[in-house]
Amino acid sequence: MPQNTERVAYVNGNTVPESQAVISVFDRGFRWGDSVYDMTRTFGGEPFKLGAHLDRLYRSLLYTRIDPGLSKNEMEEITQEVVASNRRLLGPSDDYSITHVVSRGLIDTRFHEGANVAIYCLPLAFATFARQYVDGTRIITPAVRRTPPQSLSPKAKIANKMNHFMAEFEAKETHPDAVALMLDMDGNVAECTGANFMFVADGVIKVPNRRHVLPGISMETVIELAETLDIPVQEGDYTPFDVYQSDEAFITSTSYSIAPVATLNGRPIGDEMPGPITRGLLAAWSDLAGVNFVDQALSHLPQSERGS
Amino acid sequence: MPQNTERVAYVNGNTVPESQAVISVFDRGFRWGDSVYDMTRTFGGEPFKLGAHLDRLYRSLLYTRIDPGLSKNEMEEITQEVVASNRRLLGPSDDYSITHVVSRGLIDTRFHEGANVAIYCLPLAFATFARQYVDGTRIITPAVRRTPPQSLSPKAKIANKMNHFMAEFEAKETHPDAVALMLDMDGNVAECTGANFMFVADGVIKVPNRRHVLPGISMETVIELAETLDIPVQEGDYTPFDVYQSDEAFITSTSYSIAPVATLNGRPIGDEMPGPITRGLLAAWSDLAGVNFVDQALSHLPQSERGS
Amino acid sequence: MPQNTERVAYVNGNTVPESQAVISVFDRGFRWGDSVYDMTRTFGGEPFKLGAHLDRLYRSLLYTRIDPGLSKNEMEEITQEVVASNRRLLGPSDDYSITHVVSRGLIDTRFHEGANVAIYCLPLAFATFARQYVDGTRIITPAVRRTPPQSLSPKAKIANKMNHFMAEFEAKETHPDAVALMLDMDGNVAECTGANFMFVADGVIKVPNRRHVLPGISMETVIELAETLDIPVQEGDYTPFDVYQSDEAFITSTSYSIAPVATLNGRPIGDEMPGPITRGLLAAWSDLAGVNFVDQALSHLPQSERGS
Amino acid sequence: MPQNTERVAYVNGNTVPESQAVISVFDRGFRWGDSVYDMTRTFGGEPFKLGAHLDRLYRSLLYTRIDPGLSKNEMEEITQEVVASNRRLLGPSDDYSITHVVSRGLIDTRFHEGANVAIYCLPLAFATFARQYVDGTRIITPAVRRTPPQSLSPKAKIANKMNHFMAEFEAKETHPDAVALMLDMDGNVAECTGANFMFVADGVIKVPNRRHVLPGISMETVIELAETLDIPVQEGDYTPFDVYQSDEAFITSTSYSIAPVATLNGRPIGDEMPGPITRGLLAAWSDLAGVNFVDQALSHLPQSERGS
Amino acid sequence: MPQNTERVAYVNGNTVPESQAVISVFDRGFRWGDSVYDMTRTFGGEPFKLGAHLDRLYRSLLYTRIDPGLSKNEMEEITQEVVASNRRLLGPSDDYSITHVVSRGLIDTRFHEGANVAIYCLPLAFATFARQYVDGTRIITPAVRRTPPQSLSPKAKIANKMNHFMAEFEAKETHPDAVALMLDMDGNVAECTGANFMFVADGVIKVPNRRHVLPGISMETVIELAETLDIPVQEGDYTPFDVYQSDEAFITSTSYSIAPVATLNGRPIGDEMPGPITRGLLAAWSDLAGVNFVDQALSHLPQSERGS
Amino acid sequence: MPQNTERVAYVNGNTVPESQAVISVFDRGFRWGDSVYDMTRTFGGEPFKLGAHLDRLYRSLLYTRIDPGLSKNEMEEITQEVVASNRRLLGPSDDYSITHVVSRGLIDTRFHEGANVAIYCLPLAFATFARQYVDGTRIITPAVRRTPPQSLSPKAKIANKMNHFMAEFEAKETHPDAVALMLDMDGNVAECTGANFMFVADGVIKVPNRRHVLPGISMETVIELAETLDIPVQEGDYTPFDVYQSDEAFITSTSYSIAPVATLNGRPIGDEMPGPITRGLLAAWSDLAGVNFVDQALSHLPQSERGS
Repeated sequence: MPQNTERVAYVNGNTVPESQAVISVFDRGFRWGDSVYDMTRTFGGEPFKLGAHLDRLYRSLLYTRIDPGLSKNEMEEITQEVVASNRRLLGPSDDYSITHVVSRGLIDTRFHEGANVAIYCLPLAFATFARQYVDGTRIITPAVRRTPPQSLSPKAKIANKMNHFMAEFEAKETHPDAVALMLDMDGNVAECTGANFMFVADGVIKVPNRRHVLPGISMETVIELAETLDIPVQEGDYTPFDVYQSDEAFITSTSYSIAPVATLNGRPIGDEMPGPITRGLLAAWSDLAGVNFVDQALSHLPQSERGS
Repeated sequence: MPQNTERVAYVNGNTVPESQAVISVFDRGFRWGDSVYDMTRTFGGEPFKLGAHLDRLYRSLLYTRIDPGLSKNEMEEITQEVVASNRRLLGPSDDYSITHVVSRGLIDTRFHEGANVAIYCLPLAFATFARQYVDGTRIITPAVRRTPPQSLSPKAKIANKMNHFMAEFEAKETHPDAVALMLDMDGNVAECTGANFMFVADGVIKVPNRRHVLPGISMETVIELAETLDIPVQEGDYTPFDVYQSDEAFITSTSYSIAPVATLNGRPIGDEMPGPITRGLLAAWSDLAGVNFVDQALSHLPQSERGS
Repeated sequence: MPQNTERVAYVNGNTVPESQAVISVFDRGFRWGDSVYDMTRTFGGEPFKLGAHLDRLYRSLLYTRIDPGLSKNEMEEITQEVVASNRRLLGPSDDYSITHVVSRGLIDTRFHEGANVAIYCLPLAFATFARQYVDGTRIITPAVRRTPPQSLSPKAKIANKMNHFMAEFEAKETHPDAVALMLDMDGNVAECTGANFMFVADGVIKVPNRRHVLPGISMETVIELAETLDIPVQEGDYTPFDVYQSDEAFITSTSYSIAPVATLNGRPIGDEMPGPITRGLLAAWSDLAGVNFVDQALSHLPQSERGS
Repeated sequence: MPQNTERVAYVNGNTVPESQAVISVFDRGFRWGDSVYDMTRTFGGEPFKLGAHLDRLYRSLLYTRIDPGLSKNEMEEITQEVVASNRRLLGPSDDYSITHVVSRGLIDTRFHEGANVAIYCLPLAFATFARQYVDGTRIITPAVRRTPPQSLSPKAKIANKMNHFMAEFEAKETHPDAVALMLDMDGNVAECTGANFMFVADGVIKVPNRRHVLPGISMETVIELAETLDIPVQEGDYTPFDVYQSDEAFITSTSYSIAPVATLNGRPIGDEMPGPITRGLLAAWSDLAGVNFVDQALSHLPQSERGS
Repeated sequence: MPQNTERVAYVNGNTVPESQAVISVFDRGFRWGDSVYDMTRTFGGEPFKLGAHLDRLYRSLLYTRIDPGLSKNEMEEITQEVVASNRRLLGPSDDYSITHVVSRGLIDTRFHEGANVAIYCLPLAFATFARQYVDGTRIITPAVRRTPPQSLSPKAKIANKMNHFMAEFEAKETHPDAVALMLDMDGNVAECTGANFMFVADGVIKVPNRRHVLPGISMETVIELAETLDIPVQEGDYTPFDVYQSDEAFITSTSYSIAPVATLNGRPIGDEMPGPITRGLLAAWSDLAGVNFVDQALSHLPQSERGS
Repeated sequence: MPQNTERVAYVNGNTVPESQAVISVFDRGFRWGDSVYDMTRTFGGEPFKLGAHLDRLYRSLLYTRIDPGLSKNEMEEITQEVVASNRRLLGPSDDYSITHVVSRGLIDTRFHEGANVAIYCLPLAFATFARQYVDGTRIITPAVRRTPPQSLSPKAKIANKMNHFMAEFEAKETHPDAVALMLDMDGNVAECTGANFMFVADGVIKVPNRRHVLPGISMETVIELAETLDIPVQEGDYTPFDVYQSDEAFITSTSYSIAPVATLNGRPIGDEMPGPITRGLLAAWSDLAGVNFVDQALSHLPQSERGS
C-alpha cells in the first residue's frame, strides 16, 4: 500500500501513516480499559460540533483523573490538522469519523511517559447503516442492565464498554442488525450501545432520564432542533410500556445522526417509517449540516436496495 | 538499550523485544476496553499455578465471546517460552509477573484480523509492597460501589477497571498507600482493586460472597492452605461492622500473595501485625511456593526499612 | 362430538363434559387473576406425586386467603375420580396433565357463593416438547425481571402469570421455541415460565436460590434423584456467567420432567446433548415413574424427526 | 328469576342473560390471569369517559399482546348496546359500573378460538362506599410493595391483582373498611387497590410519580378539574412523611370518583372532612357529570346514617 | 420517697438514688442519639449472661468509636455492685432488667468530659408480657423497612431506634398489643422492636439472615438450647410466605426470653399455643436459668387471667 | 462559676442555670434516640427565622408522634425568653445557636410524665468554621449511605444521627476538617452531616433531590436569595460526576449559613474561593441578616489567620 494513498493518524506528538500508528502493549488502556475516548464526524469533510465533542472528552478526562498533556485548544488544532491531512483521501460522497483515544499511559514507563493520545479518521461505513433510514431499527431490551452511576458514571465516555457489548450479544440473538436498548437498574429505558434512544408520544419528544445515559452530542442536537421546530421535549423515567405505546421512536449517534426505530422487542412502533416528527428532525439536521446525510448514506447502497 | 539485555514479549505470533511490542491504535481494547487479561507470577522463576490462571483467562474469553485464536494448550506453551526467554534477565531475588492480554482485535481489520494477543513479563516491584508485610495495609471503603453482576460479571477479568480506579482515587485521599475495599450494591464487603479481601473472626477465615468478586487464584490458594491447616473458612455477606470486630484481616493478590491489613477506615484490626493465622498462612504458602516471599520482598528494601 | 368420547371436568361439585365446563364471567379469577392453580401429570395414567401437588395448592390457598370449600382429602378424592372417568379416553402412549384451578369466587354472588373450583385433564402435548429431549432447549434471559417476593411470593402458584408471559414474548423474538430464563431483581438466575432451571458445574447440580422461584415438584424430584445417584446439589445466587461456564443445564417441569438446555443466549452449554448427568437423571426418573417418558414423547413425532 | 328482569351481558359475540354469561374453565384468564380489563361507570345512566377507558383497555391489550378481535369502535358500539339493553333495569338513584374483560382465550381451542371478551353491567354498590364521603377513608401502608415496572407495568390494567389483594389483607387487619396505600420499591407512595391516591399541601395537589401507578381516568379527571379551578398540581416521589404533614388527601376511583382520606396509619389528615379543596373538586365533578354523586350515594343509606 | 426504699443507679462514677440520676441536657445521646446501650436481665436476682451483653456493648462502642472510659472488667464490676445494692428491693417473684447506656458525652464539656455512662435496674414489667406466653403474640409486618446495613449496622445496639418505633406505630394500629416484625430492604423477615423473630417449619428452627438483625443474646441462647435438644437450626432469607406456612413461631428478647407467636397479619401460626418445639425451648431455658420464668410472669397476673 | 455569669436553659417548665439543666438517665432520648431537635441561630442576638425552625420542629414531632405538651406559640415564647435572659452574656461579635430538644419522656414515669423539653443557647464557635469562608471546605463522599426514606424520613430532624457520624468518621480519615457528603442508596448526592450541599453549573444552582435530605432552613434561604438575584435553581438527582464538573459548590447550615467547597474527594471545584455566585449569595444573606457574618466569623481568628 503506497504511503500517499494511506491516511495518517496522530500518536503522541507524531503524525504517522495509519499502518504505523501503534502503542506499546504495556498501555493501560489496552490492559485495563484505563482510557477515555470520543468520536466526531464530518459533514462535507468538516468536523461537526468538534468543540462539543472535545468538551465532553475533557469532562471524561477530568472525571477519570487522566492528564492528556495537551490543552483543549492544542487538541483541537491537532485534530484539525489530522483531518486536513486526510481530507484529500475522502471520496465524494464520503465523510469521516474522527476518533480521540487518551489512555493514562503505560504500566512500564521506560518506553513512554504520560498519557497515550491517538487521533485517527475512518471513513463512515454508510453501507452498514443506510438501510436503517428506510427500514427502521430493530430494538431489543436485553437482560443485562446499564452500569449504575454509583459504580461508574455513564456521563463519561470511558473505554469500559463490555457492559454494552454483553447487551449487544443478547440483542443480536434476535437478528444480526438488532440494537440493544439497555435499561437502568430500575428497569427504565436508558441508552443503546453508542446511541441515545428517544421516542415521541402525543407530539412530545421523550428523552430518558439523563442520569443514566451519555449526554450524546447528537441527542443534544435533536433537542436544539426540536426547539426550533416547536416540538416539546420531556425528560423522564420511561419504561418499555411507554415505548410500546409511542407514536415514533429513534436513536441518535454521531455516525448516522438519527435513525428511526421500527420495532421494540418485535412490536412495531408507529405507522410510518420514519414517522412525521422523525422526518422533520432529519430534514432540519440535514439543513443544519448542509448535507442530506440520508441521501448520502443511501448512495452507498446498490440502487436496488435504496428503497422508495 | 542493547537487545540482549532487553526482555521479549509475545505479540500476535511474534516474539519481539519489549520496546517493539506494539499494537495498532485501532485496537478495540485500547479504545473500548474490549479485552480480557490475567496475571500469573513466578516463584523462583517458575510460573505458579499457570494452569489455573489460564483457565480463568479462558472463562473470561468465553464470557466476553472473544476468540483468542489459540487453544489453552498453545497459550500455555507460548507463555512458557516467553518466560524461558526472559529468565536469564531475572535478578537473584527477583521474580516475574506474567501478563496475558487478549483483545477482540482491531476496529479496522486492514492491519490485523482476529484477536490481539500479548504476553509479557515484568519484574515484580517488591519494593512497592514489601512494607505491607511488616506494617500492614491501610484499607478504606470508598463511596464508589463495585459494578453489580447484572451489569458485568466480576468473575471475569475484563479490561474494564475504571470502576476500581475511581474507588482507588478515593482511598488515596487518606494516604498514598491506602487500598480501596469496595462494597457491593447492598453495602457488603466485596474486593479490593486487584486483590481479594478476607478476615478472621473467632478462628474462622471469612470470605466475602463470591458472587461479587473475582475468584482470585490467591484467594483459592489461601482456602486450600486453610484446609491443610485445619482453619475453617466461611463465605458470607459481610459488612464493615464485621471487619471492625475481626481479629485479623488480609488481602490476597498474585503479586504479594498475602498482605496483612492494619486498619479499616483508620480503625486498627487485631493486635499483632500480622496476626497468628495470617502468619501461619504466609508460612504455609512459602512452603508451597518453595520461596520465602516475605524475605524476598523485604530484601528489596534498604536494610534500615526492613523492620524487625 | 358425541358425549361418550368427550372427557369430563369437575366444576363446583359437578362432573360435566368438558364442553359444558364453564364458570360465570363474574369470576374473580377471570377478571383479576384472583385464583390459584396447580398441575399434576400422570405416568401410565396414574397421577404422579399428586399429594405433593395438592400440598402446594393448599399452601397457595393459605397464602392468598382463598377458602376452597374442600379439604385436601376431598380434593384428592375428586381428582382421582376425574382421572378415573377420563382414563378410558387416554391413548396408549398418552398421559394426562391434571389441572386444578381455585378462584376466590364471583364478584356477584347471585349465581354462586364461595370459591370456584375446576379440575380437568388434558392429554400432554408430547409433540410440542419431544424435540427438546434431543436438541435441547434454547434459553434466553429477557429484560423483564421476575416479580420480587416483597410484591408477591414466587413460592405460591398464583394466576398472575403476565410477568412470565411478558418475559416469554422477549424470548420468542429470538426463536419460536426459545424459553425465557428470568432473572431476579439483582440479576440472579431465577426460573423459566412454568419450569425450574438448574445447571451442572464440576459435577455439582446448582439450583437457583429458592427464595425467588416456585418450589417445583419436578425440581424437588431431581434433587431426590440426585441424592440417590450421589450427585451433590448446591443452592445459591447464580448469574448468567455461571451458566455460560457450566457443563450441563436443564429445565424441569411437570409436563416434560427434565429437558436439557442447548444454549443460553445463543452460547452452547456443554458438549453433549443431553450431558451425562442429565442423562442419568432422565433414566432415574423413568425408573421412578415406570415409564420411559423420553421414548413416550418421541413416539409422538414422525419417525423422521425422532433423532438418533 | 324471570328473564325480563335480568340484565344481559356480552360474551364473545352474544348478548345473553347474566346467569348464562359464562366462559370455559379452560380460559387462560381464569387459570393464569392472562387477561386485561377496565371499568367505566355511568352518571345518570350514561357512560362517563367511555372513550378514555377503552383507550386504556387497548393500551393494556397492546402491551400484553392480546388481540381482542374487535376494533376499538366495535368495542364501543357493543358497550353502548349492552348499557342500552340494561338501562331500563336501573333504579332512579342508581348507576352502573360497566366492566370489560378480555382474556387471551382458551388453553384448549376446541371450544373457542381467539380472545374471550365479556362486557357486563353491575349496579354501583353505593351503600358500601357512601360513608367515605362523610367520614373519610382510613388509609394504611402495608408491608407488601407494589409490583415494580421492571416486572410488570402498573400502567396496564392486567388481571394480576393478587399483589393488591395481599396488601389489602394487611390493611383490613386494622379495620374492615381500611384501604391499603401501597408503596413502591423505594418506599414512595404509589396507589391503592383500585384507586389512585393524591394529597394537598400548601394549596398544591400532589400526585405520586405516575411511573408506579395506573393512569386512573378519575385521577386525570381531578387534574383537569384542578386546572379549571386554578389549583396547581405537582407530580413527584412522595413518602408517608409528606402525607402525614399534608392538609388534605383523597383517593379517586371509577366508582366513587373522589373519596376524602381521614387518616394515614391512624394519624388524622387535615382538619375538615372533606377538606376545602376536596370539596371543591367534588362539586366541580358533580357539575361535570351532571349528577351530585355524593347525594346519590348517601341516598342509599338509611336516613340516620347519612351524616350531617 | 425515703431513700432507703429507693433503688440506686450508677452515673459517671457515682452511685446515686434513681431520683438523682441525671445527665446534662447537653448530652449528645439526648440530642443526637449519639449513644449505645444494652440490657441484661436477672433470673433469681442474678444477672444472666452479663458477659455476653457486655461483649455486645463493647462491640457497639468499638463500631461507633465511643470510648466509655472504663474497661469491660470495670464495667462488669460496677454492674454487679449496682445490682447488689438494689437486690434487697427486689420482690420475691421479681427480677431486674439492667440497662447500660453510654453516650459520647456532652456538646459542652464545661460540665463533664468524656462519655456519659449510666447503669440502672428496673423491675421487669411481667404483667405487660405474661399473657403472651398463653395467648401468643400478634405479629404485624409494617411498611417501614429496617434500616439497611449500608446506612447503619443492625448488629450494634445504638440509640437510634426511631426506625423501630415508626414500625411499631403501624403495628399498634391493628391492636394495642401487636408487635412489628420488620422486613429488610428486599422484603425478608428481619427483626422486631427489641426482639428477634424465629419460626419452625418441618421440625427446623428458622433464623432470619443475621446480616439484618441484632445478634440477640436470647436468640443465641435459643440456638444453644436447640443444639442440646437436637433441633436443627437454619439461617436464611425468609419471607412472610414462609412464616404463613410455618408450624410455630416465636420471638426472643431479654425480658421475656421466648414468647410464642399467635398470628402473622391476622393469620394463625400453628395449631397449639405455644407449639411443641416452643414449649420444649421454654422448658429448657427455665432449666438453664433455674427459674420457671413463665410461671414467674403469670404470677404477676390476677388469678383469673393466668389462663389454663 | 457565679450564677450571674452563667447562661440559663429551659428544662420542662423551669429556667435554670445551665450547670443545673439536667434530665433523668431514664430519658428515652438518652437511651434510644427517641427525641427530635432543631437549631436556630441569632444574628445580632436576634433569632433568625425562628418560626421556620419551630415549624420544622413540629413537623418532626408530628411524624414521630411525640406530644411536646406545648403549643408552637408557647414554644416560641419560651424560646424568646431564654434568648432574652442570655442576651446580656453575649460578646460583641458573638451570636447564639438556640437548641430545642424534645424527647418522648422517661421510661420510668415516677420522676416525670410526658415529653422532656430542653431549650438552650450556646455561643457559636466561629473559630472552628471561620477558615472555611476563606479556604473552602474539603468534601469527601464516604461509603456509608444516607438512611433511606423507607426506613426513616430524612425530612424530620430526629435524634438518630449515628448514620451521619459514621460517615463523618470516614471523611475525617482524609483530613481532620473534611466534611462527609453522603450519597443516597442509588449513589446520588444527598446531604452533609448538619449541612445541605448545593453546587453551581452553567450559572444554575443545583439542589439535590429533596426526597433524601433535610429541608434545611439555610438551603431554603439560599433558594429565596437566588430568586432575588435572578439565579435559576434546579432540583435533581445529581451524582459526584456532576459535582466534579461544576463551577462552584457550597454547603449551608444554621451556624455558618453558607460555606464554599474547595474540593470533592481531593479534586478542586471551581477557580476562585469562593466563586462569584457563592460570593453573591454570601453578600445577599449578610444584607438579609443585617450582619456581615463572614467578617464576624473571621474576627474570631487571630489577625494572621484571617486570610486576604
